[in-house]
Amino acid sequence: MKKRHKFEIMNKLKYAAILFLFLGLIYGFEDRNNPVSTPEDSLVIRNIYSEALVGTESYENLMYLCKVIGGRLTGSKNAENGVNYVFDLLKKMNIDNVYKQDLMVRNWVRGEKEIAYAFTDEIGRIGFNVCALGTSVGTGENGISGSLIEVKSFDELKILGRENIEGKIVFFNRAADERGISTGYGYGSSVDQRVIGAIEGARYGAIGVVVRSATVSHDNFPHTGVMHYNDSLTKIPAVGISTKEADELDKQLSLFKNLKFYFRTTCRQNPDVPSNNVIGEIKGSEHPEEIILVGGHLDSWDLGEGAHDDGTGVIQGIEVLRLYQKLGIKPKHTIRFAAFMDEEIDQAGGRKYAELTKNEKHIAAIESDGGGFVPFGFSMDGTPEQVEKLKSFQKDFEPYFLFYFRKGGGGVDISFLKKAGIPLIGLVVDSQRYFDYHHSGNDVFENVNRREMQLGSAAMASLIFLIDKYGL
Amino acid sequence: MKKRHKFEIMNKLKYAAILFLFLGLIYGFEDRNNPVSTPEDSLVIRNIYSEALVGTESYENLMYLCKVIGGRLTGSKNAENGVNYVFDLLKKMNIDNVYKQDLMVRNWVRGEKEIAYAFTDEIGRIGFNVCALGTSVGTGENGISGSLIEVKSFDELKILGRENIEGKIVFFNRAADERGISTGYGYGSSVDQRVIGAIEGARYGAIGVVVRSATVSHDNFPHTGVMHYNDSLTKIPAVGISTKEADELDKQLSLFKNLKFYFRTTCRQNPDVPSNNVIGEIKGSEHPEEIILVGGHLDSWDLGEGAHDDGTGVIQGIEVLRLYQKLGIKPKHTIRFAAFMDEEIDQAGGRKYAELTKNEKHIAAIESDGGGFVPFGFSMDGTPEQVEKLKSFQKDFEPYFLFYFRKGGGGVDISFLKKAGIPLIGLVVDSQRYFDYHHSGNDVFENVNRREMQLGSAAMASLIFLIDKYGL
Repeated sequence: MKKRHKFEIMNKLKYAAILFLFLGLIYGFEDRNNPVSTPEDSLVIRNIYSEALVGTESYENLMYLCKVIGGRLTGSKNAENGVNYVFDLLKKMNIDNVYKQDLMVRNWVRGEKEIAYAFTDEIGRIGFNVCALGTSVGTGENGISGSLIEVKSFDELKILGRENIEGKIVFFNRAADERGISTGYGYGSSVDQRVIGAIEGARYGAIGVVVRSATVSHDNFPHTGVMHYNDSLTKIPAVGISTKEADELDKQLSLFKNLKFYFRTTCRQNPDVPSNNVIGEIKGSEHPEEIILVGGHLDSWDLGEGAHDDGTGVIQGIEVLRLYQKLGIKPKHTIRFAAFMDEEIDQAGGRKYAELTKNEKHIAAIESDGGGFVPFGFSMDGTPEQVEKLKSFQKDFEPYFLFYFRKGGGGVDISFLKKAGIPLIGLVVDSQRYFDYHHSGNDVFENVNRREMQLGSAAMASLIFLIDKYGL
Repeated sequence: MKKRHKFEIMNKLKYAAILFLFLGLIYGFEDRNNPVSTPEDSLVIRNIYSEALVGTESYENLMYLCKVIGGRLTGSKNAENGVNYVFDLLKKMNIDNVYKQDLMVRNWVRGEKEIAYAFTDEIGRIGFNVCALGTSVGTGENGISGSLIEVKSFDELKILGRENIEGKIVFFNRAADERGISTGYGYGSSVDQRVIGAIEGARYGAIGVVVRSATVSHDNFPHTGVMHYNDSLTKIPAVGISTKEADELDKQLSLFKNLKFYFRTTCRQNPDVPSNNVIGEIKGSEHPEEIILVGGHLDSWDLGEGAHDDGTGVIQGIEVLRLYQKLGIKPKHTIRFAAFMDEEIDQAGGRKYAELTKNEKHIAAIESDGGGFVPFGFSMDGTPEQVEKLKSFQKDFEPYFLFYFRKGGGGVDISFLKKAGIPLIGLVVDSQRYFDYHHSGNDVFENVNRREMQLGSAAMASLIFLIDKYGL
């Protein structure tokens, strides 16, 4: 009996030792209760995180927004459904004030599924999966075809000149630079081809452009996104192609110099339509006239479900309000959530919202538009003093693995508040997977992890709690 | 013409402004060139990261390890194939020294796909997807069935006593605590049910146990993992059930008090078999006799492909060697990679490796066994002076978003080196998704992001570079 007892203790100790070593790796050994502003603050933040991590409502809301409503292209029926869904959701929460802001938006429609193939008499057709770029003109019913000319820069176009480009289709195939640590670096290194490729092609008489997707991912999803025209040049149709298919097209072109390309898009610009921002707020107990804003954009591209871009931002903002309600936190200032319309095309929602600053005082504006990934911290577009104040909150967040509190961007929708002198804050999240999904058919609910999204909700709710208490 | 020119500039400026605002969010505005040990060090680290982020070999190697070889259960043919694959891979790299360490391992086999269902005369059968827990005895060909008794703690078992448990099947259904920021906290809060549930059940005469998976994820994957027996008690069969199915079983039990459960497992323990660690190294130019070790474990559970646990750790270690070769970095000390066998069951590989410390000097040992996720930093099990030295490297890593340099765990395989006084270092990565995959059929190649894995490879290669140059 004694031997058995000893055996069991040894067995448990052995198990405990291995588990401890394993958890040591995952979790660290030490006490991570860093000093915080006050022990009470620490407790509130701990409760915010606990409730966010246990709560499932917001993830279910995201599922509805993605799976039942779907992609919410500005001006579309889906976008309108999104507005009504968010409005109803806020109404049901019984918060102090829920309303819509009216605005007008563009109404670009994709039309039928795009068709594209490369071809020569010799090899016949090789199909490619392309997508019209956002706001592109269509090709007309019959599509367009022409010789394909591949370039990696606008300078190359200039060197080739009109004599080599006129009547052809330009294939912009500069790959995103993968060496940046943030994937936004790679996006920034290649997205000019999408945005002004059709202008640069038209300048030399091209009849259309095919653009490699602006992403560091290697995948089969064509990524869309907004493009621009120059009214003094011909508006030529533009399509995006996935990075893997761009590599394939490049390979076929190197094999068959006489390769031609055909594509057909029926996208078009319909007349502008009315749309809305949606706003909901919890009134402040001491300074209801002073506002701390949190938001994301409700519109998205249409190929996917607008999950990471920016369904999660919208849902996280709503979750901030829910966390306040559920935990009974009474803010001194008004906490306002805004779902912005039309971030992707003309930012009509952000511009419209900024009109409110004529009559209202905002203490801070926070946006989540980097996807529902694990948060690293916050970046701020504000005065040096405000940035220092933000940095002083870092110690409260270190137990939650947030270490990045720096000067930086806020977000596109809230950027229009800058001229009113409002400090703008962006939730900074891990960016590694963002451009796997961004603007593509891969931006779907399944690719959002509940905990990652909720850590962002908790981080923003906690920051708002500190700003409400200590100012900025 | 002038007007057109002005328009174009305005158009470009507008686009540039929006892009800048967006990238500001993703990337931050400021210069992140923090001071580093020396400008040359900074450049080497930058080159390591660039090469890692551009390189695709290691991701292809992981695909082979996962898709062609598959899950590598200790003692299995797959594990042997994994040993040969890693050995051949290292040999092809033409590094200085490649060899295997011989060892003996257990040979537990799962047998046929498990069968399980709940049933009453009234409602018939409701199927459940269960998996035998690692090293469990089987039920025999006919399976076992009995009344089901649900508990959430061992104390409940004690209170119920033998009179309520004998002849029944115990259903351990304590959920993982989701409130921890690291998911290892939730794992640690529930995994005791898996590890010693069969011992505690047998103590009161249970004939088998069904164990809720130790994970914070809500999914349909049963998670396996090692379990223990007590030789002085009956060895009863144990199976795992997914968190969602555990909730369903709980619900059925609340509806039908007379619910019984049946399961059949044909897993068994075969005689021990020979196996191997695999080792490869680049000899040091000044102190070849002093070793910096980096490694992960080659064995895995069999339900998935051992992708995050710990295919990525193995592939990252090999990638460290490739980065040194490709960039022509000549280490002063020997950089050694080890693929450890049998981490999951008896840690025979880690124990065997530790025998080398009798005749060899190790400067440091680094393990990656938290999955191929975005790295946060390093934790160290070492002297306070060594931890301080590690922390002094933090500034070199901040441009790469690594901020976590603290005392903490190293890793299970290298833990056996502790008694030789070797500082143990663990790569600390984001843990949010780890237990979505851990020990389940969901631990597959598709769930590893190339860039996330490679940021870990680069972090370890960079740390090794600094340790090689500045010591610990």
